[in-house]
Amino acid sequence: MTEQDQHWLQHAVRLAERAGIETSPNPRVGCVIVRQGQVLGEGWTQPVGQAHAEVQALRDAQQHGHDVRGATAYVSLEPCSHFGRTPPCAFGLRDAGIARVVAAAGDANPLVSGKGFAILRDAGIDVLAEPDPALAQQVREMNIGFFHRMKTGLPWVRLKMAASLDGRTALPNGQSQWITSPAAREDGHRWRARADVILTGIGTVLADNPQLNVRGIDIPRQPPKWVIDSGFRTPLQAGVMQGAALTVVGASDNPQRLALQNAGVQTLLMPGAAGKVDLQEVIQVLGSQQCNEVHVEAGAALSGALVHEGLVNEILLYMAPKFLGAGAGVLALPEMQHVNQARMWQIHDTLQIGRDIRLCLR
Amino acid sequence: MTEQDQHWLQHAVRLAERAGIETSPNPRVGCVIVRQGQVLGEGWTQPVGQAHAEVQALRDAQQHGHDVRGATAYVSLEPCSHFGRTPPCAFGLRDAGIARVVAAAGDANPLVSGKGFAILRDAGIDVLAEPDPALAQQVREMNIGFFHRMKTGLPWVRLKMAASLDGRTALPNGQSQWITSPAAREDGHRWRARADVILTGIGTVLADNPQLNVRGIDIPRQPPKWVIDSGFRTPLQAGVMQGAALTVVGASDNPQRLALQNAGVQTLLMPGAAGKVDLQEVIQVLGSQQCNEVHVEAGAALSGALVHEGLVNEILLYMAPKFLGAGAGVLALPEMQHVNQARMWQIHDTLQIGRDIRLCLR
Repeated sequence: MTEQDQHWLQHAVRLAERAGIETSPNPRVGCVIVRQGQVLGEGWTQPVGQAHAEVQALRDAQQHGHDVRGATAYVSLEPCSHFGRTPPCAFGLRDAGIARVVAAAGDANPLVSGKGFAILRDAGIDVLAEPDPALAQQVREMNIGFFHRMKTGLPWVRLKMAASLDGRTALPNGQSQWITSPAAREDGHRWRARADVILTGIGTVLADNPQLNVRGIDIPRQPPKWVIDSGFRTPLQAGVMQGAALTVVGASDNPQRLALQNAGVQTLLMPGAAGKVDLQEVIQVLGSQQCNEVHVEAGAALSGALVHEGLVNEILLYMAPKFLGAGAGVLALPEMQHVNQARMWQIHDTLQIGRDIRLCLR
Repeated sequence: MTEQDQHWLQHAVRLAERAGIETSPNPRVGCVIVRQGQVLGEGWTQPVGQAHAEVQALRDAQQHGHDVRGATAYVSLEPCSHFGRTPPCAFGLRDAGIARVVAAAGDANPLVSGKGFAILRDAGIDVLAEPDPALAQQVREMNIGFFHRMKTGLPWVRLKMAASLDGRTALPNGQSQWITSPAAREDGHRWRARADVILTGIGTVLADNPQLNVRGIDIPRQPPKWVIDSGFRTPLQAGVMQGAALTVVGASDNPQRLALQNAGVQTLLMPGAAGKVDLQEVIQVLGSQQCNEVHVEAGAALSGALVHEGLVNEILLYMAPKFLGAGAGVLALPEMQHVNQARMWQIHDTLQIGRDIRLCLR
């Protein structure tokens, strides 16, 4: 890879970052077409159903009257090879006469990985794939839910929690507003904003009556909300009924379910053990609905159950630098006999946000 | 300040770092004597009762046959002005014919601050004081206990705690070894090593039977140990009885106190409210005994009481990236009605140690 290649590939990755959450379930991709140091066209993934990055870049070149034949296309991700909502981008690049393709990362889907490159190579196009491991990693992080779902069929489940340094989310009297600072709460809204679904439990709905919407940030759409509520006890007046579409998942049918349906709520039955909702099924269904990222904000019961069942991929733990002594904990877990029984997480990163600290665990 | 000054002043601060904990209660100071870019002599504070940094540097110059008259002395801290265990260093520099003194930080003691500089200036010596705020801060951090005691008469009290991310120090069955990793525990021993006193409570002595000594690190001396034990219940067979000198502080006299005394333990009576030990008096007495740094490792009861009474200056919180769900907490605090009642700490720094994270709070 030349220094020029490095420069333009980084540019393609930066373009990918301009694609917003509304590309989902498609990945965020960037593409820049270059000949002899001159940009002919550039683009990034448009909202789902519209053009992918490569098509955008080709159109951009056309609009500027540039002939792209013989040029190099730098893409953040391997061009797609399948007919989905749009034709394969590998065909688009080929048919436009692109001579060389440099891709920061291979396809996330192990079943199709390399097929996009194969189409290009079969057409005599020179392909340079994943020349920079750090850049490939950046592309995977940017599309962590998409990559995870392509590999596992499941969404990337991110659990957000806010607590004191001694792990309390509320005082014994239930008072909890606000343990963390406004800066930390705003950061939390950014993570809500990028989710395909916001998930909570009936305990949180009844105790805190949250709206679970994104506030204080410009966003193209509010994420839909799912409530785990085995007995369909979500009140018709609940804050979560407002705004984006609501799905309530119960464990057994009852008249309240009908009332929720009549109020426009989607209800699903996913019975599990002991009268509870089958959480594995919930996550599987969300994956089959092409959810890339699920954002969980729930109480100790649901959060603990998700962690215990191994359904959480990432924890965002906001901690305020204070000690409350007593009160609700972050996770309800089955009692252990030895500290070695606890799952060991990896500290992916730590960040001071205002006066608070945020840990990202995986 | 010239670049040369900057260079030699940094060198003096590095020399100060070579002085170990055995200088206590004196501060760790470094001194280098320079003329025209040539080092004539250098030194750092020796164990208490022996030479200070300036005297060491003058001796070093003499041993090398250098005449220091007209030279510049770079010191990390304002030369002392009082007759203590050794004569004032300001006199030493003056009498040796030093022409110029550059000091990274002024004296910690507000009562004598500037007196060392005044002695030098009165003798016609050119003085440059605290030319670099960052370097001055480094000197204060290196001697944080000394600076704090000079200002307040009290030692710097550092509370060390190790917990899971949900603030548990042990499982409900009492099992706690080991929540944090060997790397974090070794780091904890480094902090024990620099303390003038290691403080714990009878709860920890009875539950964990720790030795509270420094292990795995080369050290000049084991710090003495103090146990807060209102009823003098420390067993004669306790691990804490071994090694460095032990002091047990109780709240009321009883026969067990005599047994401890007969076993060579120093016992003190400091009765406070409700049959407990007066913790403020404990800290005051430690300050009057010229303790610079007190290292606390205790259970939730004593740790919580010290924090609640405002006697803790710094918390080192080691957190293992796991969740235990239930178990003992880090701090027992009076129940609050509102989260605003909790004291807000400042996150001074965060550090990943092995797989764990360490927060320093002030």
